[in-house]
Amino acid sequence: MAYKAPVADYDFLWRHVLDAERQLLDMTGGALGVDDAAAVFAAAADFAVSELHPLNASGDREGSVLRDGRVVTPTGFDEAFRGYARGGWMGVEIPTELGGEGMPHLLTAPMGELWSAANSAFGLCTGLTVGAIHAIGAVGSPEQKQTFLSPMVEGRWTGTMNLTEPQAGTDLAAIRTTATPNEDGSWRVRGQKIFITWGDHELSENIVHLVLARTPGAPDGLAGLSLFIVPKFRLDANGAVGERNDITTVALEHKLGIHASPTCVLEYENATGYLLGDLHRGLTSMFVMMNVSRMGIGVQGLGIADRAHQQARDYAQQRLQGTPVGRDRGTPIAGHPDVARLLTSSASLISAARGVLVQVALWQDLAEQGDETARAAADFFSPIVKGWFTEESVRITSDAVQVHGGAGFIEETGVAQHYRDARITPIYEGTTAIQANDLVGRKVIRDSGAVASTLLDAIDKDIVDLRAVDHEVVDRTVERLERAVALVRQATATLVSRSEERPRDVQAASVNYLTMWGLLAGGWMLARSVTAALRVDDVDTRRRTVEADFYGAHHLSRIASLHEALIAGEIA
Amino acid sequence: MAYKAPVADYDFLWRHVLDAERQLLDMTGGALGVDDAAAVFAAAADFAVSELHPLNASGDREGSVLRDGRVVTPTGFDEAFRGYARGGWMGVEIPTELGGEGMPHLLTAPMGELWSAANSAFGLCTGLTVGAIHAIGAVGSPEQKQTFLSPMVEGRWTGTMNLTEPQAGTDLAAIRTTATPNEDGSWRVRGQKIFITWGDHELSENIVHLVLARTPGAPDGLAGLSLFIVPKFRLDANGAVGERNDITTVALEHKLGIHASPTCVLEYENATGYLLGDLHRGLTSMFVMMNVSRMGIGVQGLGIADRAHQQARDYAQQRLQGTPVGRDRGTPIAGHPDVARLLTSSASLISAARGVLVQVALWQDLAEQGDETARAAADFFSPIVKGWFTEESVRITSDAVQVHGGAGFIEETGVAQHYRDARITPIYEGTTAIQANDLVGRKVIRDSGAVASTLLDAIDKDIVDLRAVDHEVVDRTVERLERAVALVRQATATLVSRSEERPRDVQAASVNYLTMWGLLAGGWMLARSVTAALRVDDVDTRRRTVEADFYGAHHLSRIASLHEALIAGEIA
Repeated sequence: MAYKAPVADYDFLWRHVLDAERQLLDMTGGALGVDDAAAVFAAAADFAVSELHPLNASGDREGSVLRDGRVVTPTGFDEAFRGYARGGWMGVEIPTELGGEGMPHLLTAPMGELWSAANSAFGLCTGLTVGAIHAIGAVGSPEQKQTFLSPMVEGRWTGTMNLTEPQAGTDLAAIRTTATPNEDGSWRVRGQKIFITWGDHELSENIVHLVLARTPGAPDGLAGLSLFIVPKFRLDANGAVGERNDITTVALEHKLGIHASPTCVLEYENATGYLLGDLHRGLTSMFVMMNVSRMGIGVQGLGIADRAHQQARDYAQQRLQGTPVGRDRGTPIAGHPDVARLLTSSASLISAARGVLVQVALWQDLAEQGDETARAAADFFSPIVKGWFTEESVRITSDAVQVHGGAGFIEETGVAQHYRDARITPIYEGTTAIQANDLVGRKVIRDSGAVASTLLDAIDKDIVDLRAVDHEVVDRTVERLERAVALVRQATATLVSRSEERPRDVQAASVNYLTMWGLLAGGWMLARSVTAALRVDDVDTRRRTVEADFYGAHHLSRIASLHEALIAGEIA
Repeated sequence: MAYKAPVADYDFLWRHVLDAERQLLDMTGGALGVDDAAAVFAAAADFAVSELHPLNASGDREGSVLRDGRVVTPTGFDEAFRGYARGGWMGVEIPTELGGEGMPHLLTAPMGELWSAANSAFGLCTGLTVGAIHAIGAVGSPEQKQTFLSPMVEGRWTGTMNLTEPQAGTDLAAIRTTATPNEDGSWRVRGQKIFITWGDHELSENIVHLVLARTPGAPDGLAGLSLFIVPKFRLDANGAVGERNDITTVALEHKLGIHASPTCVLEYENATGYLLGDLHRGLTSMFVMMNVSRMGIGVQGLGIADRAHQQARDYAQQRLQGTPVGRDRGTPIAGHPDVARLLTSSASLISAARGVLVQVALWQDLAEQGDETARAAADFFSPIVKGWFTEESVRITSDAVQVHGGAGFIEETGVAQHYRDARITPIYEGTTAIQANDLVGRKVIRDSGAVASTLLDAIDKDIVDLRAVDHEVVDRTVERLERAVALVRQATATLVSRSEERPRDVQAASVNYLTMWGLLAGGWMLARSVTAALRVDDVDTRRRTVEADFYGAHHLSRIASLHEALIAGEIA
């Protein structure tokens, strides 16, 4: 059950589809071209394949457990974590001013796929730490940055996100955890937080909890929340790890998947915390972290999906069972038309998602250089990356089980783990509905569809270029894309027109709308991949052509039925 | 986490949609009208709710385990099995000439939903026993019937199906287990069988294994297989349970779901068996059992789906989280438009599947009375019931997890079990692709689409009647059904026309074709349910109308995209 990192695929996307050599060099002051990005990516792939992937199945079996109040992580995770820190992987995407490498999203977003494909439970620990670094970097005081950033960037300390309480999941306004001021300027934090991913463990010397809490006299609801840094171990005057803070790990959850990741119930009794950012602006501060994390969860969905797909494909290329129609005896089951259908379906979705991912990552990079059009595009797509990739990951891992037949249902085969692991991705960091409401509410209705329209125009412009390509698959793809663009344009207008009078119709249609965008963007990127492959005579041109054609027939075609349901609005 | 049996729903379908009072009385010699069927169903529901359902979650946690060579089933399963036998439930669907109650499929098929919803792992044991009874009844010798049927119908002995071997799953031609004749007319069976559901346990006094094996000098492939009765305990001269047969339970599989059901690796060393049916006709004999079982698995998918949906609906009606747009504060999450979308999606699919189930069951009953048109319809739909219901059960249980948010991912919540349990249903008793190949190959292409055409004509005829109903939802549904019928008709013609020259295109499209039929038949039955409800002013008319309207917009609409992919054929 080998895992092969998609090194060549991302190289192709960077080099030929985005033609990003110039942009990479520009944004890194000439330090990093495509060759350099590919080399860093290949090194990350090596670490993922050799150090993280071997712990994925064993980590699932062993799980993290709570023993005498201490969280015991699966065998090998401590060594893997040390290796990750030693390799400097925690800092690659952290801006240089925060002590990191400042590598562009165009490189680091795909790297997220590697960690998740190899070991999604492990990747959560490092991903959340990166999110916490960003939050502290964005709103922390100079002292806080001084104290916390280096140990975190160096991978000595890790970070967590403490939002959820039993009565406050999606609705953070219901948070009851309190923080009361101490005389020395610190705060006393009290309350129970649940679903805290990597909330306790001993991989790192300290754990930096970012905790949403309510201060005395604060307004009700979201506007009364403030964010606090609450470390597992208090810090002495020199910022070194001191005595234990008053935080108890009450329980670990027994979950469907990601067993190696300890999901904690944390009791804050008399815990010392430090206000991070402005009072009553906790949600804004936390959103810095949540925005990093939700993109990361979208990429996690992609990584788990690809791992499951690879396993199914490898199995299908070896397993003999019957002779596929029109094929020679001895042809493995991958030759059966329906097995091929499942495999190509998954492969085409994964390639589409990778295309969307690098395009969005490039927009993020350009946004950080001040390009406002790119910023709008990146913001528009962040809920799509989260919502669409993760929903498709559930489908792809399910199809990977199906390809295995009865063997897929046996845990030792290993593919069932991916099916279990993937199921959390459309839930945490905001369910698909939450992503869809963000997309429709904040990104479409607020500007009456202006950004959506700009993006559709960009796709239309590419379609004009595509028409110049003389290839039957491109011809078909152009025709399918044109239909899809027209439907998404129509859906956008429908939602905008209904926003005032029929808000429930809009919300009932929001997930379909998000899915339509994901499917369309995936088709757009596959079309660009085929034309790029034809242009440069890429070694995988045939596979890319098949994927685009299949995706057009099987996945772009879904847009029409989603649109029909969208138009119907709420049916209740 | 209560489970409510769908007593009123089936009563409505029997009484008002199928108008089956006359038919029920005719086929039971006046013994059983709708009121009587409803009473039996309600009694079964009582047993399922009070005796089987309480063991579902605990059975999942404990699982069946192999201890010192013996299979230990979860706490309470033995008592539940005795209660099931005592209640006479094993015999309800067994023909009277085989010692059963001979109740019509119209009643017993929905009863299968009860067992699976309450405890799908338990229901496998009894379902397989019923299948084995049918096989022995169909092809057994008078002595074999005399010996085996009574103890099985009375629930003292259980039955299993032994097909799969490591190299022979979907491809039974690869079976290597051998049977060599003994001097006394019995056979010596040797070989290893895997994935044997309820292959060993101590709930019953004996286990009657039906084993596919190859005899000396038999032709290669499927034509060389014969079926043998191999009991766990040999029988003495009086047919009483004697010494242990030479069958060893080598291992139990660790599975994704249905943990309470022991899935055995059985080693037949020197086991005594008895030829069942004709030599070299083993597959035909086994198909009697497989046909019973695969319908049963379709119904299992439905049962698990409904159980998961009920749990999600109950949770959503209690859980408070934010205030749904346009609703009062304190409205639970079921009031959020996207939660409502997920719940109505599942509810409408479940209602559609129930409608299809009773229609197919009625065809089965009429077929047994000699109605050849009904037989053709029932045969046509048996792969659809298996393939479509089970695929939708994966979707519905996944959506039920999603409705729960983070809590859905926690095993103690219980909904994750349904998601795990459901995943086997599109695999065992023939994967969805196998069902689809049966549908397309044996039921469509063989008669050039004649039966398909007859069925489509029947739906068209109902559409004419529907047009007479003055109701906006019915109007919309008629329009949607007409489009769906046209597409299925076109798809049928496409597959028939390609059958000679393009067999791979046909197989690549077969699952889509099966799904199109399932969706269409579901829409047809929901339309009939709405008109029946309007006619009799049913208490649930509003819900039925909403479900039909939602299903039309969200599920019938899927047919168009499935058709677009079907037309494309194989893309490789």
